[in-house]
Amino acid sequence: MAQEFIGNLLVAQSGGPTPVINASLAGVITEALQYEDNIAEIYGGLNGIQGILNEQLIDLAAESQQTVRALSQTPGAILGTCRYKMKRQQDFDRVLDVFAAHNIRYFLYIGGNDSQDTAAKINALALERGYALRVIGVPKTVDNDLPVTDHCPGYGSVIKHIATTVREMALDNAAMGQHDFVSILEVMGRGAGWIAAGSVLAKRRTALIEDAPHIVLLPEAHFNQQAFVDAVQMVLRKQHFCFIVTAEGLLDPAGNFLGAGATATDAFGHAVLGGVGETLRTIVEQNLAGVKVRSAKLGITQRAAIHNASQTDVDEAVLVGRAAVRAAIDGESGKMVVLVREDKDGKDTYSVRTELAPLNEVANAVKTFPTAWIGEDKMSIGFQFAKYAQPLIQGEVAIPCEGGLPKFAQLLAARIERKLDAYETLK
Amino acid sequence: MAQEFIGNLLVAQSGGPTPVINASLAGVITEALQYEDNIAEIYGGLNGIQGILNEQLIDLAAESQQTVRALSQTPGAILGTCRYKMKRQQDFDRVLDVFAAHNIRYFLYIGGNDSQDTAAKINALALERGYALRVIGVPKTVDNDLPVTDHCPGYGSVIKHIATTVREMALDNAAMGQHDFVSILEVMGRGAGWIAAGSVLAKRRTALIEDAPHIVLLPEAHFNQQAFVDAVQMVLRKQHFCFIVTAEGLLDPAGNFLGAGATATDAFGHAVLGGVGETLRTIVEQNLAGVKVRSAKLGITQRAAIHNASQTDVDEAVLVGRAAVRAAIDGESGKMVVLVREDKDGKDTYSVRTELAPLNEVANAVKTFPTAWIGEDKMSIGFQFAKYAQPLIQGEVAIPCEGGLPKFAQLLAARIERKLDAYETLK
Repeated sequence: MAQEFIGNLLVAQSGGPTPVINASLAGVITEALQYEDNIAEIYGGLNGIQGILNEQLIDLAAESQQTVRALSQTPGAILGTCRYKMKRQQDFDRVLDVFAAHNIRYFLYIGGNDSQDTAAKINALALERGYALRVIGVPKTVDNDLPVTDHCPGYGSVIKHIATTVREMALDNAAMGQHDFVSILEVMGRGAGWIAAGSVLAKRRTALIEDAPHIVLLPEAHFNQQAFVDAVQMVLRKQHFCFIVTAEGLLDPAGNFLGAGATATDAFGHAVLGGVGETLRTIVEQNLAGVKVRSAKLGITQRAAIHNASQTDVDEAVLVGRAAVRAAIDGESGKMVVLVREDKDGKDTYSVRTELAPLNEVANAVKTFPTAWIGEDKMSIGFQFAKYAQPLIQGEVAIPCEGGLPKFAQLLAARIERKLDAYETLK
Repeated sequence: MAQEFIGNLLVAQSGGPTPVINASLAGVITEALQYEDNIAEIYGGLNGIQGILNEQLIDLAAESQQTVRALSQTPGAILGTCRYKMKRQQDFDRVLDVFAAHNIRYFLYIGGNDSQDTAAKINALALERGYALRVIGVPKTVDNDLPVTDHCPGYGSVIKHIATTVREMALDNAAMGQHDFVSILEVMGRGAGWIAAGSVLAKRRTALIEDAPHIVLLPEAHFNQQAFVDAVQMVLRKQHFCFIVTAEGLLDPAGNFLGAGATATDAFGHAVLGGVGETLRTIVEQNLAGVKVRSAKLGITQRAAIHNASQTDVDEAVLVGRAAVRAAIDGESGKMVVLVREDKDGKDTYSVRTELAPLNEVANAVKTFPTAWIGEDKMSIGFQFAKYAQPLIQGEVAIPCEGGLPKFAQLLAARIERKLDAYETLK
């Protein structure tokens, strides 16, 4: 069968970058090179599906081995991504036209929930039209909210960076003694609390007094202002600083975002600035007199911090990329690669293998943080989570530096000649 | 002379922590151990001068060599710091009482402007009272705003981390193509623009299009809203994203802080949330329709990021600590160690030596960013700065990790028995 299915491979990246989305790309390229009987050319689509619609393809086989190796040490998404939602039938028709024009028979899409939905629809249309195509999704999201897979490449690196940051920042806070101090760190995660929860890895088992973070707020546990203020006060009674980590997507009891963003207005029509960290800062300042509060918001820096990435995460990102190519070669389509944690008869050693899950089971679904892992106080995280997350942050990545700063991969990006007329995507 | 002046040494830390303030402490301890004929005991004062008033002293010679070595890889300020301002004569009297009770003859104070003022006053009082004491200041501040010294230990590590972050974050921004995007990064520096300026080290000389950051805003160049909006628009015309770095202390033309903090109110009496990054975000959103803006505020994380510190900075922090002890042994007092850049006949090799400057010349003075190094547009930094700053970020520090996270020094902190009655410091 492998001998009969011959054509070109197209890989693209979609959605928000992660520290390791380029490592998955490296995995795809490396593995694809192994199957020259089946895969004639390895193309990269620029700017996700939006670039593909515009026939923006580059020749990835023309990149040097050095560049491919450097991809695993380069943040961002080197092919460019998009958040383009294909709504019109003509968009889908156009994708198949582009594929046919360039004899694309393998389409690998590295992305999160929305992107896998797009991949599923392209797969369905190809089947319907009888266009021979194999579509495999490659999971990526720092938010760790994709269903089926044990965890998502990208997540481990982000929580390693956040736990490191909490541990470092807590030493700074602790040093500033002699007055009550509250430190607030706002982290990503959209509607899920996975990233915020990851901050608890900073806690040491042997700590004499309770280590930071002392309070962790997730979207999965609605915010209770009085309980929160009481908890801050209780921490400050025991030690002179209180470290709070909050998910950006924290919700009030009515289900509204606590951090409204610049487009929201307060009751008086004035713009409310800042995210949820700033909202919490105001709540503490207004309710606990004399307490000094400072907030930080890592923003995009947290999902770009390759300099503090997890080697395990990088390795697994490469792994899912390679597995996707193998699945396509094996005749699979309409599936996404998922990570499955190997059961070692209860032993503590960690290993994963890849499996496949139907794209339809993954697309548009969200895996929120298990409520069973949230403490009774709704502001702490159970030990089960640490057991789950600890293996994901192991190993440090050595980033080549030049002049004191990291040196990242740059693509030659040799363009493939267009074969179709120009196409207009929706704004 | 060296033989005659015998007593105990006391070292303390003051003000905001830096990534390398503990490296200076390591330098002091290591060097002090060399002079057993002069220095009988090596004490650490907890929580700066405030702890010294309370006789909170620990025995630093009791710490293991392993711990002293680990200090150079540990953020925060391991002795604890304070921002206590000694205003009462009785505070100064008490300091000398504590010194006399513990036979302190060498006092080394690691700190910034305010702290060196305290050191200067203690030195003057000891002279006046005829109490034999040698006081030497050890420079530290991430803000790089101490006069006389070429630069301050702590600064190089912070700008290395910020330039790394800009380079990483810019790749993320660039990947998100297809729509206009503005990224704002708010950094520290109080009234000086040194840290914000440091972000330009992220630019590569060989970049095809202009690298991030595209706009850098310093307190030394008052903010002009129209010019700013025009500049953002001009960048967005050339490429699809604009990266802005702003100092937290940015001033409007009237000299008021643009980021007012939570204690300020707007014209209607409503609290203004967020820092200057949020203010700029609102300005862009209100003036450039359809442009997506995201801001990040590294906050305390930037001055705690030992995981991305500069080896040059760590080495120089140790150097100034050692030099301070040698100066005291040599009979100096009322001076601060400063770094002097060696002139290599115009050659590009970088090296520094230490000298001494009178504490009075350093105390309470501020070295702002040279206006000659600010571009004509008031939003860019000249090449002279890169030449100055480049050497300060060289070399990466390997932080020992355990379980995927950095492992930091912890002091035994063996307390020295109190010899005086308790003392009440001002709140």
